[in-house]
Amino acid sequence: MIVEMRIGATQEEIDTVVQRVRSFGWDVQLNRGTEKTVVAILGSNTGQVSTDVFAVLPGVVSVTRIMKPYKLASREVKAEDSLVSINGIEIGGKRIVVMAGPCAVESEEQLTEAARAVKDAGASILRGGAFKPRTSPFSFQGLEQAGLELLAKVKERFNIPVITEVVDSRHVNMVSRVADILQVGSRNMQNFTLLTAVGKSKCPVVLKRGFSCTVTEWLTAADYLLAEGNNQVILCERGIRTFEDSTRFSLDISAIPVIKKYSHLPVIVDPSHGTGRRDLFTSSGDS
Amino acid sequence: MIVEMRIGATQEEIDTVVQRVRSFGWDVQLNRGTEKTVVAILGSNTGQVSTDVFAVLPGVVSVTRIMKPYKLASREVKAEDSLVSINGIEIGGKRIVVMAGPCAVESEEQLTEAARAVKDAGASILRGGAFKPRTSPFSFQGLEQAGLELLAKVKERFNIPVITEVVDSRHVNMVSRVADILQVGSRNMQNFTLLTAVGKSKCPVVLKRGFSCTVTEWLTAADYLLAEGNNQVILCERGIRTFEDSTRFSLDISAIPVIKKYSHLPVIVDPSHGTGRRDLFTSSGDS
Amino acid sequence: MIVEMRIGATQEEIDTVVQRVRSFGWDVQLNRGTEKTVVAILGSNTGQVSTDVFAVLPGVVSVTRIMKPYKLASREVKAEDSLVSINGIEIGGKRIVVMAGPCAVESEEQLTEAARAVKDAGASILRGGAFKPRTSPFSFQGLEQAGLELLAKVKERFNIPVITEVVDSRHVNMVSRVADILQVGSRNMQNFTLLTAVGKSKCPVVLKRGFSCTVTEWLTAADYLLAEGNNQVILCERGIRTFEDSTRFSLDISAIPVIKKYSHLPVIVDPSHGTGRRDLFTSSGDS
Amino acid sequence: MIVEMRIGATQEEIDTVVQRVRSFGWDVQLNRGTEKTVVAILGSNTGQVSTDVFAVLPGVVSVTRIMKPYKLASREVKAEDSLVSINGIEIGGKRIVVMAGPCAVESEEQLTEAARAVKDAGASILRGGAFKPRTSPFSFQGLEQAGLELLAKVKERFNIPVITEVVDSRHVNMVSRVADILQVGSRNMQNFTLLTAVGKSKCPVVLKRGFSCTVTEWLTAADYLLAEGNNQVILCERGIRTFEDSTRFSLDISAIPVIKKYSHLPVIVDPSHGTGRRDLFTSSGDS
Repeated sequence: MIVEMRIGATQEEIDTVVQRVRSFGWDVQLNRGTEKTVVAILGSNTGQVSTDVFAVLPGVVSVTRIMKPYKLASREVKAEDSLVSINGIEIGGKRIVVMAGPCAVESEEQLTEAARAVKDAGASILRGGAFKPRTSPFSFQGLEQAGLELLAKVKERFNIPVITEVVDSRHVNMVSRVADILQVGSRNMQNFTLLTAVGKSKCPVVLKRGFSCTVTEWLTAADYLLAEGNNQVILCERGIRTFEDSTRFSLDISAIPVIKKYSHLPVIVDPSHGTGRRDLFTSSGDS
Repeated sequence: MIVEMRIGATQEEIDTVVQRVRSFGWDVQLNRGTEKTVVAILGSNTGQVSTDVFAVLPGVVSVTRIMKPYKLASREVKAEDSLVSINGIEIGGKRIVVMAGPCAVESEEQLTEAARAVKDAGASILRGGAFKPRTSPFSFQGLEQAGLELLAKVKERFNIPVITEVVDSRHVNMVSRVADILQVGSRNMQNFTLLTAVGKSKCPVVLKRGFSCTVTEWLTAADYLLAEGNNQVILCERGIRTFEDSTRFSLDISAIPVIKKYSHLPVIVDPSHGTGRRDLFTSSGDS
Repeated sequence: MIVEMRIGATQEEIDTVVQRVRSFGWDVQLNRGTEKTVVAILGSNTGQVSTDVFAVLPGVVSVTRIMKPYKLASREVKAEDSLVSINGIEIGGKRIVVMAGPCAVESEEQLTEAARAVKDAGASILRGGAFKPRTSPFSFQGLEQAGLELLAKVKERFNIPVITEVVDSRHVNMVSRVADILQVGSRNMQNFTLLTAVGKSKCPVVLKRGFSCTVTEWLTAADYLLAEGNNQVILCERGIRTFEDSTRFSLDISAIPVIKKYSHLPVIVDPSHGTGRRDLFTSSGDS
Repeated sequence: MIVEMRIGATQEEIDTVVQRVRSFGWDVQLNRGTEKTVVAILGSNTGQVSTDVFAVLPGVVSVTRIMKPYKLASREVKAEDSLVSINGIEIGGKRIVVMAGPCAVESEEQLTEAARAVKDAGASILRGGAFKPRTSPFSFQGLEQAGLELLAKVKERFNIPVITEVVDSRHVNMVSRVADILQVGSRNMQNFTLLTAVGKSKCPVVLKRGFSCTVTEWLTAADYLLAEGNNQVILCERGIRTFEDSTRFSLDISAIPVIKKYSHLPVIVDPSHGTGRRDLFTSSGDS
């Protein structure tokens, strides 16, 4: 449920609503817009309580039930576009932001060369995997901690923010000390343990779409991050699994306007898996 | 199999190859490029004959087996992009071509208004369905012959080429008397009877992708049109069926570069089904 | 809309309902059960007329709108299971019926041998394709008319009913002179021209599921057959297209109970495409 | 690579092979069959070494590369069916084993009643979820530790083994103290951190198929469990995501014979998600 307060509602009015919500054992999130405050009520059985319970409180303009499974990611809770700012680089705004780099960090030479190429090409953020979620236990799993150290080194040398994947909730602290943006990969989109840990870290995060998850499931997974108070969430469309076999995945370009309509979160596109050809991804921004 | 002749091969050399092919009971198609001629050998059991049979003939440069199921639609048979020209409007070239109009022709007023809007918006080709392939027999099946007459009238009045769907092989002559471009719909992409009839008509045709057909199946279906000598074939990506349910279909944008790579045929995009929101489609051209 | 008449409704009462329906320009189908008659109203805009128009007529017990896209195939129009009887072999009843035979008829020897094996194995119906809908125009398209003649010969010799595919509306008469059951293949499930022709023929028909069509689309396609008065319709689940690539198609076994619930039509299963291993199919009957 | 030893190979011969493997930095798993021993070589770059390196060693009969991405789950590494035995109940053998119970443990009364019904119905194993992986953070996540305690109580009272889900690698020890079988759910099939932890626990485990993962990916995920030395792995087909929308998932029954052919692991079927109607699953065994 969403409780919309009147313009200029007093702190006392807001507190009264919050206390009433908590009396049911529910959580609350406040969205303080420039003009008015919206109180999101979060709980597993809010459907059993009448909206009137809150509608009668002073300063309340309206109370609405959110019918979609996702709440905090929805435009109903937050109408304006969310922006995520990384060292002054704004993601979700009008400027196109390009993130590029190797799939896996392999050596200092490789990463240095990549960073230089990325900078030269005008991209703003360096990407490279230290931990790789491999489908087989017998595949190279990344340089792991050594890869993180290389990322830290190159990041400092080139003064460029880095994004790197985190695959284990126990690694979140370690990875976020180096990473400017954490990446949650497609296979972990519904790894709720990991999402909760990344949410608690408050570190900016790119949540890649599960390759067979619907837009609704994706936004509901984002709620796990947002529910822990991490508002720096960026969605990344990277292609879905379909019957088509000439490409590894089919980039679901139609998902972008759907997300723009229903969610306030910024969404970027990773075309590399869809076509299997280029390892870069581009912010869709507003354009 | 593809037999590539030397630059400047004589007619006699080409005829010799053709006769040798025909002696096996196979068909032949000649692609006379600006520089050299390519002979496509078409038959159901060409795999049982050695390429040497043709390689030894005078004027032959190379003989290649086409491993893909599609032959005439492949770049191996024809390396240069095919262009389809409709009243001077070139589809498959550098200029963006827009086709627009109502899903179904409903009345003279509606079609007139649509034609005016289409012209005003700078679109080049008017689209409208007289015959509609409806999933239920109890749905409106289009104005049929009366719809065709309206198309003819409006086409003349606005001097704009029209594209309209054909659903029955017995209608091909009737429809192509009015239509500048025939449209074969998604559900008929593998209606081989209809494809053969449209192929024989030699009328320009837009072949929409079956909503669950692979790119390979689509190009192989195009071979049915090309095999009858109809070279004015335009492909149209219109979205595929996936698990995603926030859009009716998922526009498979990744298919465009795949087709550009493997086929010489022009491909356009119909974004209306993918998003379910706008009824227009745009030539992808070379851009 | 479905108009249910009282038990023992007179012919006059029924005629009155039928005439009222026709006055709107709609079609009608009567289902005369052992106890009572149900009048199905068939038209493209029945939603615009109140059910009261029919509810007030004498002998009418109830008037219900059918919310599903399919009408005649639904249990709402006909509550009891439909049986299709082929030379005394009942399809859709308690006995398991097996149909078997080669994919394509190739020669008299092959078909004779197959028929003998089929009989010896206790199967009841011989299957074999004379017309084959091939994805490439350069593949073997079946023996066509010569194949039909072989089927006629072997059918008489072994006194066994045959099922064979029809791919072109213009062939329906020719094929149904030999076939005891026509088969409409997966790629033609939404070839409405063909469905209408097969419907008019009144010949028993197996309607295979389009490999990417939903159960709802499949039952709606069956309506095309039923709307022409052909009640001898058998559905055949043969596998759907999914992302899984270890089998050519995934047999959608879950579809059987869904169909049993929503439709009165018998449904059989063709496991050959799903596994790509055995070319036989089995009646699911009630078991 | 698979090194097959001669019948009656000595321990010394086997040790020599193992040491040679380890000299490359690779891991090794021994399958000691009743007749002969097979040495599986596990490493990320085995493709760079010639099979001859091992073929020349004494006692070696053959050396084969495994071309499939999965190794330990393949029949090439282990030809005979694997059986998993739970308190004398054999899974993967000829007897049908039924596991049943509520989706989530809700209360002692509910679980007691369920256990009684399960026993009365002749099922062998009680199922119930204490930890539930919910798509929304605002849904009921299960009774968690309290649910485990209820399972322990009811298990003892009814003397019935229990299976319950584990969702977090940090819970594996806690859950396996109560559970006779751990369950890894569909959304965690590629949660490699969790798989590794469950592998290390050596506790019997049911690995449910990711709802959009191929059979190949599924068997490769099983390798994560097997690589840690946990041989008590049971696969569970529970339906895949397809375009069909009349059921929540489509039970991929065709996957069972594929797995039986390529893997030695037992596979069971959970029909509850496919149809969305009954919450029980059945061993496919050999029947």
